[in-house]
Amino acid sequence: MVPRVIFGRGSFNQLSELLAPNRLSNNAPFIFLVDDVFRTNVNITSRIPIAYQDKIILVSTAEEPKTSQVDELVEDIILTSKERPSGIIGIGGGSILDLAKAVAIMLTNEGNAEDYQGWDLVKNKALYHVGIPTISGTGAEVSRTTVLTGPQRKLGINSDFTPFDQVVLDPELTNGAPKDQWFYTGMDCFIHCVESLHGTYLNAFSKTYGDTAYGLCKEIYLDGNLTKKETQDKLMMASWHGGMSIAYSQVGVAHAMSYGLSYLLGTKHGIGNCIVFNHLEEFYPNDVKLFKEMLEKHNINMPVGICKDLSEKDFDTMIDVALGLEPLWENAIGKNWKKTITRKKLKELYSKM
Amino acid sequence: MVPRVIFGRGSFNQLSELLAPNRLSNNAPFIFLVDDVFRTNVNITSRIPIAYQDKIILVSTAEEPKTSQVDELVEDIILTSKERPSGIIGIGGGSILDLAKAVAIMLTNEGNAEDYQGWDLVKNKALYHVGIPTISGTGAEVSRTTVLTGPQRKLGINSDFTPFDQVVLDPELTNGAPKDQWFYTGMDCFIHCVESLHGTYLNAFSKTYGDTAYGLCKEIYLDGNLTKKETQDKLMMASWHGGMSIAYSQVGVAHAMSYGLSYLLGTKHGIGNCIVFNHLEEFYPNDVKLFKEMLEKHNINMPVGICKDLSEKDFDTMIDVALGLEPLWENAIGKNWKKTITRKKLKELYSKM
Repeated sequence: MVPRVIFGRGSFNQLSELLAPNRLSNNAPFIFLVDDVFRTNVNITSRIPIAYQDKIILVSTAEEPKTSQVDELVEDIILTSKERPSGIIGIGGGSILDLAKAVAIMLTNEGNAEDYQGWDLVKNKALYHVGIPTISGTGAEVSRTTVLTGPQRKLGINSDFTPFDQVVLDPELTNGAPKDQWFYTGMDCFIHCVESLHGTYLNAFSKTYGDTAYGLCKEIYLDGNLTKKETQDKLMMASWHGGMSIAYSQVGVAHAMSYGLSYLLGTKHGIGNCIVFNHLEEFYPNDVKLFKEMLEKHNINMPVGICKDLSEKDFDTMIDVALGLEPLWENAIGKNWKKTITRKKLKELYSKM
Repeated sequence: MVPRVIFGRGSFNQLSELLAPNRLSNNAPFIFLVDDVFRTNVNITSRIPIAYQDKIILVSTAEEPKTSQVDELVEDIILTSKERPSGIIGIGGGSILDLAKAVAIMLTNEGNAEDYQGWDLVKNKALYHVGIPTISGTGAEVSRTTVLTGPQRKLGINSDFTPFDQVVLDPELTNGAPKDQWFYTGMDCFIHCVESLHGTYLNAFSKTYGDTAYGLCKEIYLDGNLTKKETQDKLMMASWHGGMSIAYSQVGVAHAMSYGLSYLLGTKHGIGNCIVFNHLEEFYPNDVKLFKEMLEKHNINMPVGICKDLSEKDFDTMIDVALGLEPLWENAIGKNWKKTITRKKLKELYSKM
C-alpha cells in the first residue's frame, strides 16, 4: 500500500515541503513527469516547485505507455543528471502515473522495462516516487502495478516496489478534464468495482473497498445530486477505493479484452474498457444495464465498429493478448474458464465492437 | 498509512515468511508481545514462529497501557537482547498493538515514552513492527497513534513513525473473544465512525472510510443476517476503515470524556467509550438511539453509577483530562467549543455515568 497520502483541495501547494526532506543532494534532481496537455496550463506548471537541477519533462499521452518509452525516459534522465535523481514525480492521468512508477523502478534495476513485466520480478527498491493524479478513475495512484505495452504483450510490472511512496490527492487538479475523458476514466473505476465484486477472487477486504467505490460511482454518474466540487472529491476517492479493491483481488473480462484492443489498435484504456464492457451483458447483466443508463444520462457517443475492418490475423492477435491474461479470466469465470472462454467466443465478442 | 497488509482466514500462518527477510542477524531477535490471555491458547502460541534468540513476552492487559509499562518493556528488551532487535510483533487487542508500536519507537528514540506523548515529537524511525489484531474495533492496527496513560495525561504518541510496517488481518484469530468484549470493542469502531462523520474536520477522504465502516457496524450489530465467519471478516474490515477514517479526521466527545474515566478510574477504552456514548444524545441523537438498540439486541448490561462516589477533586481530574484534548472538542463542536463545553457541563454528564 501507499505509505503516505495527503488529501484536500489545494493540497498540491504542499508538494514543496513534502519533497524537501527527500532531496539527496543539490546535484540529485527531482524529475517531474508531466502530461503535456498541461504545457500551457500555468495553474499547474507554475506551481511545480523547481529547485537546483530539478527538471520537468513533458510527456505525451496520445498513446498508452510503452516499455520503450520508459527505457528512453530512463536513458535521458541518466544522461542529463549529474547524480542519480532524488525522486520521480508523476503529474497527470493513469498513463503518466504508470510511467512515473516504471521510471522509478528502472532507475534502480538493470536491463529493460519489458524484462520486469509480470509478477514480483523487480529486485531493487525503486527511487522515491510521488503520484499526483489530475483525473480520477484509473486507480493508478494506489495500485501495485504499472501497465505497459511491450514488444511481446501489454502487461503490468506488478511488485511490492511499484506503489508510490507518496500520493497527493487534490481534487482541484481535475478541474479541466474534458467531459468524455472524465466519463471514460471514471468508468474505469466503475468497471474495476464490477469486476472485483463479481470475481471469484473476492474477499471481505476487497469487497468493502469495492462496495464503497461502486456506491460512489452510482452517486456521481447516476444520481446526479452533487455539486461539481463534491463530484470531484468523491470521484477521486472512488478511484482510490476502486484501486484498493482490485489490488487485493483482480480485474476481469472487460480488462482482459480491452488489453487486446489496446495492444492492436492503441485504444486508450478508459475508452477501451467502455467499448468492451458495453457488450458484456452475459457476464455482468445488471451493471452493463447501469452503464448504458450512465452513457445516456451523460450523452456519451461511444465509437462503434472499431473492429469491422480487421483481418483474421488481427483478431488472432487481440485474442492472444486477451487469453494470455489468465488470472483475469480465472477471477472472472473460475478455475474452469477455458471451457467457456474459447477463441470463437472472443472473436464473436470483438466482432460486435 | 500501513505500507503492507495481508488479509485472510489463516493468514497468521504466513508470519514466518513475512518476518524472515526482516531479520537483521541471528543475534537480533524478533520480540513477540502477546496478550497473556493467550498463555494457554496453543492455537496461537504454538504458531508463533520462534527462531534463534526470538522471545515471547506475555503482557497483561488488565489495565490500559502506560508509559511506565513501555519504559519497563524497553529496558527489559535492551538488557536481555544481544543486539538491537530485528522487530517487535504485537499479537492482541488495542492495548497490545499500542504497546508494540510504542516499544518499537522507544527502542530507537532516547528518553522516556511520556516525552513523546503529543503530535510529531518522534525523531527517529521506529524498529520494524508488525501488528496482528486478535479482536476487532479499535483501529489500532491502522492508526498513526499509540494511546498511553502517562504520569501527566492520557494521550497518544502521534507520528509518521507510529504506524505498523506490516499488518496481518486474520479474522480467525478473533474466534475466542468473550461476547462483552466483542461488543465493547466493536462499539469503539462504531463510535469512531460517528465521531468522524459528525465532526467539523470531516473531509471526503475520511467520509468514504467512515461511511463504509459505519455501514458494516450496522450490518453486524443490528441487521444480524450474517454467519459467524462473515461477522468476523466484516468486523475486522470495519475496524480498519473506521481507523482510517479517524486517521484523517479526529474523534469527538465520547473519546474525550472516556479518556477522563480511564485516567482516573482505569476504565478500559472500549467499555469507557460505551459508558460515555450512552449519555450523548444531545450530541449524536440518532446514533445514540442506534447504540441503545444494539445494547438491547445483544443483551449487554453496562455498568452504571461508576461516578456516584467520586469527590469534587476526582471530577476535576477527569474534567481536566477531557478538556485537555482540544482537537477532539474542536472537531466535535467547532472552533467555539469553549462556549458550550464548560466544566459544569462535563460534571453534569459525568455525574450521570
